[in-house]
Amino acid sequence: MERLRTTELAAHVGERVRVSGWLNTIRRLGGISFLVIRDGWGIVQAVAEQEADLVPLTEAGAGVESVISVEGTVTSSPQAPGGLELQAIVVEVIVPVKEPPPLTLSKREIKAAQPTLLDHAVVGNRHVMRRAVLRLGAAIMTGFRRTLNDQGFTEIQTPKIVASATESGANVFKLDYFGRPAYLAQSPQFYKQIMVGVFERVYEVGPVFRAEPHDSTRHVNEYASLDAEFGFIQNHFTVMAVLRDVIAGILAALQEMCSAELGLLQARMPVVPAEIPHIHFSEAQELILTRHHVDVRGEPDLSPQDERWLGDWAQEQFNSDFLFVTGYPMRKRPFYTHPDPEMPEYSNSFDLIFRGTELVTGGQRLHRYDDYLRALEQAHLPVEPFESYLEAFRYGMPPHGGFAIGLERLIMQLVGLSSIKLATTFPRDINRLSP
Amino acid sequence: MERLRTTELAAHVGERVRVSGWLNTIRRLGGISFLVIRDGWGIVQAVAEQEADLVPLTEAGAGVESVISVEGTVTSSPQAPGGLELQAIVVEVIVPVKEPPPLTLSKREIKAAQPTLLDHAVVGNRHVMRRAVLRLGAAIMTGFRRTLNDQGFTEIQTPKIVASATESGANVFKLDYFGRPAYLAQSPQFYKQIMVGVFERVYEVGPVFRAEPHDSTRHVNEYASLDAEFGFIQNHFTVMAVLRDVIAGILAALQEMCSAELGLLQARMPVVPAEIPHIHFSEAQELILTRHHVDVRGEPDLSPQDERWLGDWAQEQFNSDFLFVTGYPMRKRPFYTHPDPEMPEYSNSFDLIFRGTELVTGGQRLHRYDDYLRALEQAHLPVEPFESYLEAFRYGMPPHGGFAIGLERLIMQLVGLSSIKLATTFPRDINRLSP
Repeated sequence: MERLRTTELAAHVGERVRVSGWLNTIRRLGGISFLVIRDGWGIVQAVAEQEADLVPLTEAGAGVESVISVEGTVTSSPQAPGGLELQAIVVEVIVPVKEPPPLTLSKREIKAAQPTLLDHAVVGNRHVMRRAVLRLGAAIMTGFRRTLNDQGFTEIQTPKIVASATESGANVFKLDYFGRPAYLAQSPQFYKQIMVGVFERVYEVGPVFRAEPHDSTRHVNEYASLDAEFGFIQNHFTVMAVLRDVIAGILAALQEMCSAELGLLQARMPVVPAEIPHIHFSEAQELILTRHHVDVRGEPDLSPQDERWLGDWAQEQFNSDFLFVTGYPMRKRPFYTHPDPEMPEYSNSFDLIFRGTELVTGGQRLHRYDDYLRALEQAHLPVEPFESYLEAFRYGMPPHGGFAIGLERLIMQLVGLSSIKLATTFPRDINRLSP
Repeated sequence: MERLRTTELAAHVGERVRVSGWLNTIRRLGGISFLVIRDGWGIVQAVAEQEADLVPLTEAGAGVESVISVEGTVTSSPQAPGGLELQAIVVEVIVPVKEPPPLTLSKREIKAAQPTLLDHAVVGNRHVMRRAVLRLGAAIMTGFRRTLNDQGFTEIQTPKIVASATESGANVFKLDYFGRPAYLAQSPQFYKQIMVGVFERVYEVGPVFRAEPHDSTRHVNEYASLDAEFGFIQNHFTVMAVLRDVIAGILAALQEMCSAELGLLQARMPVVPAEIPHIHFSEAQELILTRHHVDVRGEPDLSPQDERWLGDWAQEQFNSDFLFVTGYPMRKRPFYTHPDPEMPEYSNSFDLIFRGTELVTGGQRLHRYDDYLRALEQAHLPVEPFESYLEAFRYGMPPHGGFAIGLERLIMQLVGLSSIKLATTFPRDINRLSP
C-alpha cells in the first residue's frame, strides 16, 4: 500500500491507508493505547485497541522516535489532534529506537533550558512547535523570491570569501586562503550593487557572517540575509515601495504554505497597509520629546526604547504594525549611503520598524564615481581595497538602492520568540559552534 | 513618460516610448548614428538621424557605458537586433562615462584573455553573452526549487561555519572563530541528513567551500550547490527518480525564463528521457573493455575518458545525453555511503553523466546508528567530532538518500564553456580572491 502523508488523510476518511514516520508519543489508558505518528508534514493519532497491536513495538524494544509504518482506517474523531485518527491498526517497525532521546519531544512545550535545547538541536528541531517555527523560513524565502521575480529581478549568488574586510573593517571572520588572509562576507552589499550594473534588479538569499563578540538574544554570528538591490530609482522611497510589496508577498506565502504552522504557533499575522506610514528621523525625535518628554534630539540613532515608542505611535495613529523611519543621520551610516540632497547631514536611508523593533534597513546608495572617491576620503578609508567595487561606478551606474531582511529576525518577530536563536536551525554564537 | 524594458517593446510598435540603460555601442555611418542601449533584460537599437540628436552625449562627453534614457518611436526594422529600433530619438544622459572601460563590451565576443576578463568581471559581467550565461543560474535555481516544492520538500539554510573538518578532513578552509579553530562547510551533507529527521524531504541552495589547492578548468574553490536529501526511500533508485524530475524541471525553467539567453548562446538543450538509462559500475568497466579494448576493471573510479566513452555509448544506445552509472565501489565513497546489500563491496550510489562528464553525485546513506559506528571504525575516524551528527541516527532515521548538483558545473556543461570560471559570477581559485 502506498503511504500517504499525515496531511493528506482528511480526504480519505473510511479508507485503509498507510502512514510512515516517527513514533512521537505513546500513551496507555487502560487497555487502549494512543500512538501519535509524526511524519515530515504533520502528525496523526493511531489507536491500538488491544495489546496485541503493539507486539511489533514491544518485540523490537521500540520506544519514541522509532521509525514506523502504521496501516489503519481513517476515522473522524473530534477529540483527536486534527479531528482524525487511525483505527484497527497494524504497526511495522522500520528502525527501532531503544533509548529515550535527550529531549522530550512528546509534550507541547520542550521542557529544557535553552542551552540544552540548542546542544541537542539535531533532535530538538523535530519537536512539532520548533519545527513549525523553522518551516516558516521556507515560506518567507519563497515569498521574497516570488515577489521580486514578478518585478523583473534576477537571483544572484555572490562570493562569501572576500579579499578585504571592506564594509566596516571590524567584526569580520578571518580566514586562511591558501596562505593569504581573507574574510567572510558580512553582507553581499558590494556585490549586489555591482550586479545592478549587470541585471539592474537583483536579489540574493544567502548566509552572512558577523563576528560580533557578544552573546545576545537579537544577534547570531551567521544568518540568512534576504538582499535586494535595484537601479533607476528616484530615491529611497522607490526602495520602500518595493520593500512594502516584498513584505506583503512574504506574508501571503506564509498564509499559503504555512497556515497549519501559524495556527499551531498562534502567530498574530500583521496586515501590510497599501502604503506603510513613514516619518523622518528628526520628526521621530521631536515626536518622542512631545509624547514622552524624553529629549533624544542630537542622538545619531534610535534606541530600542525609541523604536518601541514609535511602534506604539504607528499602531495608534495608523493602526499599522509597520512604520518607516527615514533620513537617519549620515554620520552613523556606511560610506556608500546617499545623502539627502536637501539636507546633506541626513541620508536617503530608512529602517522598517515592525511592532516596535527594527526589521529591515535600506536606502539609496551613492552612484557616481567621484562621490565614492570623496566619501572614502571623508571616511579616512584607502581607495586600493575598493578598486574592483569602484569599477562598477567608474563605468556607469544608475541611481540605485536596496535593502536586507534578516530571515531569522523576521521569524522571531512574527512569532514573538524570546531569542533569535530559537528561530535559527543551528545557531552560531560566541560560545556555540555546534551542532 | 514611464520607462519600458527593452524586452517589452515588441508590444508597442508605432508608439513613443522611453527606455533607460547603458550605452552599449555607438556606431556612426555617414550622417546616421546607431546606438545600442542595454538595460537589465535586453538591448535595443536607436537611430540618430542627425548629429543634433547626439548633442546631449557629446556635451557631457558621454561614451559607452554611460547611463542614459532614450525616448523614441518603436519601429519594425528587420536588420536591427530583435527586429525593432527606436527612431526620432531624444537622448538624455543620466550618468556620463568619459573613459573607455577596461574591456570592450560592444563586440559579440569579449576580446580579452581569461585572466583579464576575470580581473575585470565587475564590468565584464555586463557583456551580453556573459550576462546570458550568468542569468541561466537564476532559472536553474528556480527549476530546482519548484520541482522539489511540488514534491513536498522544505527549503533549509544550514550553517557554513562548522566545528570540525569532518567530511573528508582535507581540503577545508580554516577559520578563527573567536579564538577557536573552525572550518567552512565543504557541503551541507551532514546537516541535510539531520534535517531529514525533521522535515523528511529537504533541499538547500547555498555556497560550499573546497580548499582544493589546484587551478583547473573544472573546479572553483567556492560554488553554489543544489542539495537535496529525503527519507523513506527504497534505495538509490528512488533518489535517481527524483533527480530525473529535478533535471527535467530545471530544463523547463530554463526554456521558460531564459529562452532569449539560450538562443543567444546557441545552447544545445538536452531532452530528459522519461527514465534515464543506467548501467552498473562493473558492467560499465566490462563495456569499456569490450568496446575500446582498455581494461579498467579493478579501478575504483571512472576516468574522464571512461565517462566520455560511456556518454557516447548512451548516445548511441539510448539516444540519451544522460546516463546513470550506479554501484561505485565502496572503498572510494565517503563513510556514510550505504553498501549494496547484495554486493557489499559496491555501494548504493550513482553518478549522473551528462554528455560524457559527471554532473551529479548521489546515493543512499547509512541510516542505522550501529552502522555509523562501524563505518567510522572501519574508516579509522574518531566518534567524538561526529557526536551531534550521530544523534540523528541514534534517535531514529529512515532509509534516506540524496544528491548534489553544482550550479556552475551545470551551466558550463549546458553551454559548452571551456572553463567553469566562465560560468561563475566572481570565481575563486588558488590565485584569485577578487573581485
